[in-house]
Amino acid sequence: MQIGEILQKTAGKLAVTDEAVLALEIMRVAPLDLAVSGELSFLTNPAHLDKARTTAASAILVAEAVPELNVPQIITANPYVAMAELATQLNASDREYPAHRQLTHIHPQAEVDAQAIVYPYVFIDKGSRIGAGSVIYPHCFIGAGVTIGENCTLYPNVTVFDNCEMGNRIVINAGAVIGNDGFGFAQTGMEAVKIPHCGRIVIEDNCEIGALNTIARATFAETRIRAGCKLDAQVHIGHNVDLGQFSLIAAQSGIAGSTKVGRNLIMAAQAGIANSLTIPAHVVLGSRGGLNKSPSVSGQYAGAPALPGAEWRRQQAVYKNLPALAKKVRALEQELRDLKNQLR
Amino acid sequence: MQIGEILQKTAGKLAVTDEAVLALEIMRVAPLDLAVSGELSFLTNPAHLDKARTTAASAILVAEAVPELNVPQIITANPYVAMAELATQLNASDREYPAHRQLTHIHPQAEVDAQAIVYPYVFIDKGSRIGAGSVIYPHCFIGAGVTIGENCTLYPNVTVFDNCEMGNRIVINAGAVIGNDGFGFAQTGMEAVKIPHCGRIVIEDNCEIGALNTIARATFAETRIRAGCKLDAQVHIGHNVDLGQFSLIAAQSGIAGSTKVGRNLIMAAQAGIANSLTIPAHVVLGSRGGLNKSPSVSGQYAGAPALPGAEWRRQQAVYKNLPALAKKVRALEQELRDLKNQLR
Amino acid sequence: MQIGEILQKTAGKLAVTDEAVLALEIMRVAPLDLAVSGELSFLTNPAHLDKARTTAASAILVAEAVPELNVPQIITANPYVAMAELATQLNASDREYPAHRQLTHIHPQAEVDAQAIVYPYVFIDKGSRIGAGSVIYPHCFIGAGVTIGENCTLYPNVTVFDNCEMGNRIVINAGAVIGNDGFGFAQTGMEAVKIPHCGRIVIEDNCEIGALNTIARATFAETRIRAGCKLDAQVHIGHNVDLGQFSLIAAQSGIAGSTKVGRNLIMAAQAGIANSLTIPAHVVLGSRGGLNKSPSVSGQYAGAPALPGAEWRRQQAVYKNLPALAKKVRALEQELRDLKNQLR
Repeated sequence: MQIGEILQKTAGKLAVTDEAVLALEIMRVAPLDLAVSGELSFLTNPAHLDKARTTAASAILVAEAVPELNVPQIITANPYVAMAELATQLNASDREYPAHRQLTHIHPQAEVDAQAIVYPYVFIDKGSRIGAGSVIYPHCFIGAGVTIGENCTLYPNVTVFDNCEMGNRIVINAGAVIGNDGFGFAQTGMEAVKIPHCGRIVIEDNCEIGALNTIARATFAETRIRAGCKLDAQVHIGHNVDLGQFSLIAAQSGIAGSTKVGRNLIMAAQAGIANSLTIPAHVVLGSRGGLNKSPSVSGQYAGAPALPGAEWRRQQAVYKNLPALAKKVRALEQELRDLKNQLR
Repeated sequence: MQIGEILQKTAGKLAVTDEAVLALEIMRVAPLDLAVSGELSFLTNPAHLDKARTTAASAILVAEAVPELNVPQIITANPYVAMAELATQLNASDREYPAHRQLTHIHPQAEVDAQAIVYPYVFIDKGSRIGAGSVIYPHCFIGAGVTIGENCTLYPNVTVFDNCEMGNRIVINAGAVIGNDGFGFAQTGMEAVKIPHCGRIVIEDNCEIGALNTIARATFAETRIRAGCKLDAQVHIGHNVDLGQFSLIAAQSGIAGSTKVGRNLIMAAQAGIANSLTIPAHVVLGSRGGLNKSPSVSGQYAGAPALPGAEWRRQQAVYKNLPALAKKVRALEQELRDLKNQLR
Repeated sequence: MQIGEILQKTAGKLAVTDEAVLALEIMRVAPLDLAVSGELSFLTNPAHLDKARTTAASAILVAEAVPELNVPQIITANPYVAMAELATQLNASDREYPAHRQLTHIHPQAEVDAQAIVYPYVFIDKGSRIGAGSVIYPHCFIGAGVTIGENCTLYPNVTVFDNCEMGNRIVINAGAVIGNDGFGFAQTGMEAVKIPHCGRIVIEDNCEIGALNTIARATFAETRIRAGCKLDAQVHIGHNVDLGQFSLIAAQSGIAGSTKVGRNLIMAAQAGIANSLTIPAHVVLGSRGGLNKSPSVSGQYAGAPALPGAEWRRQQAVYKNLPALAKKVRALEQELRDLKNQLR
């Protein structure tokens, strides 16, 4: 991609106009210290200015012109976002997709768009539909009545159960399981009788489901992942959860069944949210936090059971020094004994 | 399924005798507020009585007759269990299984019952046996010498290693790994030498193993999951664990190696039990609890390290308010100083 | 394997010289109480001496001769390591590998050594290389430009993304995902724009990656698992992590992105290490521990947030008895009030 084209894509301009720079060919994006000729870098943190002075990149993305840099600068509103978008485009270009559908098993009543790519060893069951530009990697299983929109990517070993519905531009990372039965049983007293999960999963546009995630099928109705959510590896979403749009969930976290989550939830790693809660928009749960009550307000929460962030920090300050507190209490007991003895 | 047949299956009777109702056709089970005509619903919680008054269901399951309801009522001993069983039967009916074993790889010395269903891309190794009525979904790997009983379901991408033995009516959810090597190494001082795990896994009748579970192979002897256990997604069971019958383990929990668990264990989500413990029957471990000692008695445990439930609740009451406790101690110190000054 | 050969392999000698023993055939390794004739056992713990007296094993490995045992004893420097090595050799012998590459999909520009074994349903993309003696089980996906060395084993359903590089004698357990995209996004304010992960994974010699692990691809540069690391099931390693050699990580633990770990880390189960930390060599993190600051020294850490082991034990001693501490404070308050009243 030539720098001229990059200027267009990023609504950017050169810090120093130079016709020759426009024709420079960019192959990849790389950080300042690793970039070589033919690569584009980015300056998003003033702490890295030194690296910008010595980078071997062919050009760098900046938010505003930096004086006395040798490297050509492309000024754009959000260089970090521009970097992400350009890297996606540059990164995607060189994959060689399979030319035809050998070793696939597509039900005659499934509809796979002619512009979709289906790798070998993919199984697609009756009545499912795959939209244009979607790529289904090897060893994916797509059950009956599944809808997958346009420009989705299902990496290898993904399982999508019956009747799940996905929008457009969705990424499902390797080994994820979409629509496994939720964990619900009727107790006879001693034994647990399985409650079949007849509901479905809906994943809206632009979501990314992490590697080895499990998104459980609803008992009835649906489990819904709203638009723009990004889930890291080994995340679990329970049955009938409604996850608000643009939520970010880090690795090894989980949300238990029937919890309704407002938009822009952020869960740090190894955190958990209990079942049947209602979470307002813009909640941030710290790593290893365990939220077991519905918070009444937005904001930070931490600890397990989780407390509001400020309260948790005050609590932790005491908790870390519990032996000192216990010592003070012992000292007080002694002092009081001594005082009483004096007064006796 | 006609309501007449439902009465037989649930040992139920109509609240109001009506011949016409017996012939009504039921397609699915659904909750009161979502049910439409042709669906059966259930009233198991008095709080939902309002919904029962307005439901569009064709009939509802109840434990005892409710006055002044328009909808036909089927009285049965345990409506919730009846619902679960009926939903399973109604849900199962419409899947179209592959007619023949194309694209499968079955070792000539494996024995697959003629009444078993083997999907494309299934690999079954030497000496393994699959019983009648069992269904093996695509991309399952079944190693050598494995025994799978009757009416089992292995969902896609399941791996079952050599010599594992499964009873009847077992469900293995997608992506589960049954019989991966346990985590055991002999230390030379600096390096860890792998101890091969030569044991096997036994899974008894009616168990359900969750999506993306790992059940580790025994070092020697066996890892055993006893009858009727239900494991949620992303559960890990260590090598040589013996899990008591009818145990329920929620998502993202784990039990470390060589622990012996009595019957009816309940683990809430993201909990852990340490290695080499002995757990009595009827232990309940709260979510995110970490049990690191063998409990001497049944009952509830919570926290990490876990305490008996009542003790944990008293502890948490103080823990949540640690800053208040610290403040009291500071106040006491001040008061005592003041008092001493007065007395000086 | 005859005992004569075992003596050679373990640099061992018989406690009592006996020509007849040298020719005894050993089929397997087993613990003292389970071993039968034809099996080799081992005495590594004096507590098991009773079992050694009654074992039915054909011979046992010992560190030094034990008087008055009927069973032939093989004296070797480290019987536990010898057991592990012999068990590996005895265990490996009887598997029947597929004779030819049927149902595989190997890109014409991939190089698979003639001495490598590739099971059915394996997909190997352009430019990848598989070394001699390596075994790739069914349903593995190997992306483009991947290098896998000699004598590696990839168990079923493993996904290896583009450009990952593996050394020799590596085991990747079932369902592991090597090189999934790291969790990195550029924020536009409301929405998260994916940062493609252009880096690679390097796994050095003799590593074992657990079942259903996720090892995230670097943003740029690499994620590196150094030689001799052993990871248990359901472990997550974030993007750009550098994991020191001979590290051991137990099940359901995780290390967040960009953390640099020194050699011989030990993480017990369900533990976590935060992102962008620097961990010195020889750190041991207890089960469910959460390390959120770079420790300045080696040694034990426990708790979440983690403290040095000794500090944590002192803290826990108070924490477990918080209600008692609260009671003491209440008693002090009362005593002080009483004293003041007396003095009034």
